[in-house]
Amino acid sequence: MRLSSFFMPTLKETPAEAQIVSHRLMLRAGMIRQSSAGIYSWLPLGFRVLKRIEQIVREEQDAHGAQELLMPTIQSADLWRESGRYDDYGKEMLRITDRHERDMLYGPTNEELITDIFRHSVRSYRQLPQILYHIQWKFRDEVRPRFGVMRGREFLMKDGYSFDIDKDAARRSYNRHFVSYLRTFARMGLKAIPMRAETGPIGGDLSHEFIILAETGESEVFCDRALVERDVLQEGIDYAGDLQPLVDSWTEPYAATEDMHDSALYEALPAERRVQARGIEVGHIFYFGTKYSAPMGAVVVGPDGQDVPVEMGSYGIGVSRLVGAIIEANHDDAGIVWPDAVAPFRAGIINLKPEDGDCTAMAETLHGRLRSAGVETLYDDRPERAGAKFATMDLIGLPWAVTVGPRGAKAGTVELKRRATGEKEELSLDAAIARLVD
Amino acid sequence: MRLSSFFMPTLKETPAEAQIVSHRLMLRAGMIRQSSAGIYSWLPLGFRVLKRIEQIVREEQDAHGAQELLMPTIQSADLWRESGRYDDYGKEMLRITDRHERDMLYGPTNEELITDIFRHSVRSYRQLPQILYHIQWKFRDEVRPRFGVMRGREFLMKDGYSFDIDKDAARRSYNRHFVSYLRTFARMGLKAIPMRAETGPIGGDLSHEFIILAETGESEVFCDRALVERDVLQEGIDYAGDLQPLVDSWTEPYAATEDMHDSALYEALPAERRVQARGIEVGHIFYFGTKYSAPMGAVVVGPDGQDVPVEMGSYGIGVSRLVGAIIEANHDDAGIVWPDAVAPFRAGIINLKPEDGDCTAMAETLHGRLRSAGVETLYDDRPERAGAKFATMDLIGLPWAVTVGPRGAKAGTVELKRRATGEKEELSLDAAIARLVD
Repeated sequence: MRLSSFFMPTLKETPAEAQIVSHRLMLRAGMIRQSSAGIYSWLPLGFRVLKRIEQIVREEQDAHGAQELLMPTIQSADLWRESGRYDDYGKEMLRITDRHERDMLYGPTNEELITDIFRHSVRSYRQLPQILYHIQWKFRDEVRPRFGVMRGREFLMKDGYSFDIDKDAARRSYNRHFVSYLRTFARMGLKAIPMRAETGPIGGDLSHEFIILAETGESEVFCDRALVERDVLQEGIDYAGDLQPLVDSWTEPYAATEDMHDSALYEALPAERRVQARGIEVGHIFYFGTKYSAPMGAVVVGPDGQDVPVEMGSYGIGVSRLVGAIIEANHDDAGIVWPDAVAPFRAGIINLKPEDGDCTAMAETLHGRLRSAGVETLYDDRPERAGAKFATMDLIGLPWAVTVGPRGAKAGTVELKRRATGEKEELSLDAAIARLVD
Repeated sequence: MRLSSFFMPTLKETPAEAQIVSHRLMLRAGMIRQSSAGIYSWLPLGFRVLKRIEQIVREEQDAHGAQELLMPTIQSADLWRESGRYDDYGKEMLRITDRHERDMLYGPTNEELITDIFRHSVRSYRQLPQILYHIQWKFRDEVRPRFGVMRGREFLMKDGYSFDIDKDAARRSYNRHFVSYLRTFARMGLKAIPMRAETGPIGGDLSHEFIILAETGESEVFCDRALVERDVLQEGIDYAGDLQPLVDSWTEPYAATEDMHDSALYEALPAERRVQARGIEVGHIFYFGTKYSAPMGAVVVGPDGQDVPVEMGSYGIGVSRLVGAIIEANHDDAGIVWPDAVAPFRAGIINLKPEDGDCTAMAETLHGRLRSAGVETLYDDRPERAGAKFATMDLIGLPWAVTVGPRGAKAGTVELKRRATGEKEELSLDAAIARLVD
């Protein structure tokens, strides 16, 4: 993709309304544009990141056996009256009246709707377990939306729901989500720590938040360093096996948000293992039994021929929020530093002197060869100063930048820079390409 | 995927509310479920088709140089007041008041919002042309939603927008869309005929509808048989070249909807070239000049240093509607007949006798080998009668069905059936797999 035609309206000035670094950087890099308070358009650069995150979430859900469907954004109020949450939910729910004066709402979450689908579709315990999820826009009418996509009003979320015949089976569905969430965040280059959480408006008996550590996090968290140092991607996982020991090994070390913090337990840790930090919630899982299935009549015929309300859980990942959270955890003074797995492009090419024939010929060759090799590349072919090009490339944070200059073009070399470390290497064109294809 | 665990709640009875065949078949096959009037959940089988259609649309947009972004569903009413459409739009617009009593709406289309993004992002004619699109849910509060996803209230649409410096350039953007739309529908196995259309609430000077022919179509259309017989996928297309001759060759033969029909012109065709049929609109393209850019101040600095309002067009494809439209054009008495490119799975496996060891061993081997080969397969492993399994497979319309029975299992053969033709062949396991991988 040529930067001269790519729709990426970067800003020179830092917008005054942006209070946190991810919001500032997303606006400056031309990733998003606010259309109303807490409502954003995702411009091409931001959209690419959003899609990569969505795809990692999808792959990890499919891998543990969840099935994807898609529920609508607009729901009937009637279902929420059945569960009893219509009046509870307060002003955060965007309430709508349609042309026939029917009460509708923009879904802030989907427990009621999925329970309704389930109760009309599944009759026998033999069809259980069922784990269904979707990735859909939600709306919460926050009184004071802020922090960009971290606390917007319209936001993209993966929400999954499990249906089981009894508590033990429900615990197995919970564990699958627990483990898949660890993998999901790790694949995005994040350290997400599961912390026991309050259940809030979803309700239920058991709940964990997944919190990533970032200096600019929204809340104070406390945990055992062992959790921070662990890498779940190095651990073999068999979803068909018993996941309880693995889950226990993640929940036994101390980890708590401010709300649930027990300073006596925390102080009991050796000093070098105590981690007190700021955290950002990126996922939340709940087991809530029959809270929705009982009032809404979501029952199956059990082994003994009797109707049993199903045991349910729900499981959320903030997909659009993750774009901001990843930036909070991965940036420096010059801009964003994308982890490879979610970067909008793998590499940038900087043509230092577009008016120099050799230089441009080499940059064009490089661009063509990377494209043929399937390496997504953003090629800065604009007639701008070198300094402005370097600054833009650092700002948008692609993992690799290849600089082609007139001297190198004569010698057949380019400079390859790793954004995360700042390391630079002078390489032949072939060697640079080989490194990027790798 | 094993049918015993796949979430596909098929219906035995035909739902009384469904008036047209695609609606009946989608409900019966467990593809969708209505949640409120004109609002549907896409269950896993339907969701897979929706995603395939979306991906074809995306690939053909990217191929002609359009860039994908994503605008939100909820918009501020203020933008629509700027363009003058807020009052015009009537009751089809779902109007919403947020907690701060601000007027919002659920976008039925996005001319205003994209024009707002453009005017804040692009300053110079040198940055033109720009073609931006998104694939997002829309809402139109139809007074009487019906025909399932063909005329729902919440629907998925690809809408694209072009921005050009003058009329000639705008015509080139229009032509790119014209040609890409022909390719898009052809790749889905549809014959879509471009017909000159009225511009309606979008406004403008030039407009074509893309209409597919189906016995159950919503409106009467008239065209030259030459258009029906043409295959655009056999024609080489160079988006960098002049597309006008190609577009002319598609617009010169007679083709008109009822509204625009000229019976004298039509009757002038030789009788054997006259096609009078029912049609379903699946795409619509508009060139409307400065209708939005002038009132909203979307100007660029032109070559002479003067501000010029940009020339715009908009281009829509009904993504969710296409699921229904494809079924209207591809079904028989037994059920859906998916074109290969949009089928939810490429093949089904019918295990005729799950209680027979050889039979099940062979079906499992087949399922495993197809999965390894990347052939998406739905494996009917349920303890049901053969007749019910054949009926389900025909209903959901996968392009290929492989039947494994006890006799064949002993002989090492399976029966391969092509859904579209009903042709059956007895083949060795290897030969059947080779055919499906092909």
